[in-house]
Amino acid sequence: MRAMLVRDIGEFPLIDRLARAIVGENAALIQRLDDDGFRTLLTIGDDAAAWDGPPGVRVLTTDTMVEGVHFSFDYTGWRDLGWKSLASNLSDVAAMGCRPTYSIVTLGLRDDLPVEGLLDMYRGIMDVARLHGGAVVGGDIVKSPVFFVTVALEGAAPSPETGLLRRDAAKPGDLIAVTGHLGCSGGGLRMMMTGTDIPDATASKHLRDAHNRPVPRVKAGLLMAERGVLSAMDVSDGLIIDLAKMCSAGNVGARLNAGSIPADDILKAAFPDDWLSLALGGGEDYELLFTAPADVIEGLRPALDVPITVIGEVVGGDGSVEVLDDDGNPVVVQRRGWDHFKN
Amino acid sequence: MRAMLVRDIGEFPLIDRLARAIVGENAALIQRLDDDGFRTLLTIGDDAAAWDGPPGVRVLTTDTMVEGVHFSFDYTGWRDLGWKSLASNLSDVAAMGCRPTYSIVTLGLRDDLPVEGLLDMYRGIMDVARLHGGAVVGGDIVKSPVFFVTVALEGAAPSPETGLLRRDAAKPGDLIAVTGHLGCSGGGLRMMMTGTDIPDATASKHLRDAHNRPVPRVKAGLLMAERGVLSAMDVSDGLIIDLAKMCSAGNVGARLNAGSIPADDILKAAFPDDWLSLALGGGEDYELLFTAPADVIEGLRPALDVPITVIGEVVGGDGSVEVLDDDGNPVVVQRRGWDHFKN
Repeated sequence: MRAMLVRDIGEFPLIDRLARAIVGENAALIQRLDDDGFRTLLTIGDDAAAWDGPPGVRVLTTDTMVEGVHFSFDYTGWRDLGWKSLASNLSDVAAMGCRPTYSIVTLGLRDDLPVEGLLDMYRGIMDVARLHGGAVVGGDIVKSPVFFVTVALEGAAPSPETGLLRRDAAKPGDLIAVTGHLGCSGGGLRMMMTGTDIPDATASKHLRDAHNRPVPRVKAGLLMAERGVLSAMDVSDGLIIDLAKMCSAGNVGARLNAGSIPADDILKAAFPDDWLSLALGGGEDYELLFTAPADVIEGLRPALDVPITVIGEVVGGDGSVEVLDDDGNPVVVQRRGWDHFKN
Repeated sequence: MRAMLVRDIGEFPLIDRLARAIVGENAALIQRLDDDGFRTLLTIGDDAAAWDGPPGVRVLTTDTMVEGVHFSFDYTGWRDLGWKSLASNLSDVAAMGCRPTYSIVTLGLRDDLPVEGLLDMYRGIMDVARLHGGAVVGGDIVKSPVFFVTVALEGAAPSPETGLLRRDAAKPGDLIAVTGHLGCSGGGLRMMMTGTDIPDATASKHLRDAHNRPVPRVKAGLLMAERGVLSAMDVSDGLIIDLAKMCSAGNVGARLNAGSIPADDILKAAFPDDWLSLALGGGEDYELLFTAPADVIEGLRPALDVPITVIGEVVGGDGSVEVLDDDGNPVVVQRRGWDHFKN
């Protein structure tokens, strides 16, 4: 029997089917928000989603994945795609020091896509929402010759006293730190695209998952905001290019120690020659890059659910990022990053 | 000299250029929100937009236009595209009885699109935002083999006492009414697609503008919510199909009088045989369809900036819509509407 395709079911029955598939799980997510001071009024099915909530600062972000540009079904499964499409937005909200609240999902669908695939994608969205937040309360489904997924996500500052983690607040003298490890996502993508042979199944899965199921650092972002960190962003385009953006925004410079860049043993073993360039420029790590005085960073360490590593310091400057080796000599970095239009 | 294309400028300079093009106009829109109880904290340039605002109900909606599916440059100019992409979202917020606040814009761009076109599109976004609200505070630009524009828009209920205009609140005995005139948008599209000859330039422009520069009924929606209307939606897919959705949501039926459907003289003159089918099923009118007791509707009339017409009544039923002629005989209606996937 041929799989049911989008064109077999039609727009409104498809919306209905997808909404019904997540209704139970999503109701639990909404209940969690309602237990926490929100009052969810309307979800999928009206002209707009609606809610009431406690007073305070709100953030709104959006992120899009286009087939053939940001993902390929050769390397990313439907369920992973769902995970990643919400996770990249959760990461942005985390990078503001806020808690994720409500999301809306837009699907641009080729009419030959399988309905079962889309259902699986929503399972992936629920997988990450269950762990990190972002109940789905609306969206839009349109026909498109290329498949794309756009998620918009709102977040709320945890309390009136808590500041936002801004991109432009780095100050000379602050240390630069990052959560987790870098480069595994880029390594995982390279492994899949080039067919790099990694016999260890656990290692191979680790790299694949780093690319397809990135963990948004929601708890870490909230803790940073509460403990006085002022400046953070998430690493999506690659450490060097993102740090350069942060430095430009804050009108400062950065000096990184190449020897401190956190890359894990699996990445180093899989890419003994390239792990540093993957960690510096691979992108899509979705770790938090942040700056703070040394004592703030040390105070954070025991409270976080993820390791943090000091990788350098903020200096005076105009947006430039310098990478030095252990002897203080400049390391030449290919500043790749992801300018999809020019590369 | 060849026009500058997206691939000539690259992602980050393009974002910068577009942001700078709207910064002045947008600042005025943000100032208006700030004068009205909001505190806009971060706009384009951080991981997310951020603001604080008065307590109360919020709504969030999104709408997407894909080239070749929802628009064609043969019929819609860049500036019109900008207008329409925000206007369709403003219309959804209007249909909730809320005021538009903050919007975020996602562009999926072919790399051969002209930068000047995109700048013109943002002029169109500002054109409609200036009149009806929705300051642009963020978004995302991605590469895509097909051009698409997704706007997400938040709105705020005008006061704690004001109810939302829900889709599911129609009650048997209520009258059904609609703002403005129907069918001109569909007529304008048909005129452009088929080359229908309409010698009167004013009439031709009227139909084209109805399609490309729909007027979101923001003030009307706010007034409806304040004056006790409970149920409304905007007419985007076509009167019959949208009314059927409203009836399904409210578990009621509808009886329409074909003779009451408001179509203007220009549409009737241009399409003497088809104006009724265009008014019933043309779609993209972005007028408000609403139901209320007769006295509420009569009370609204003098306060609105747009005419309203009673077109029928809500009856018991299960989502069915019946159209009757002046003698009470059923009119056969082609229930076209826009199921892009199945048509």
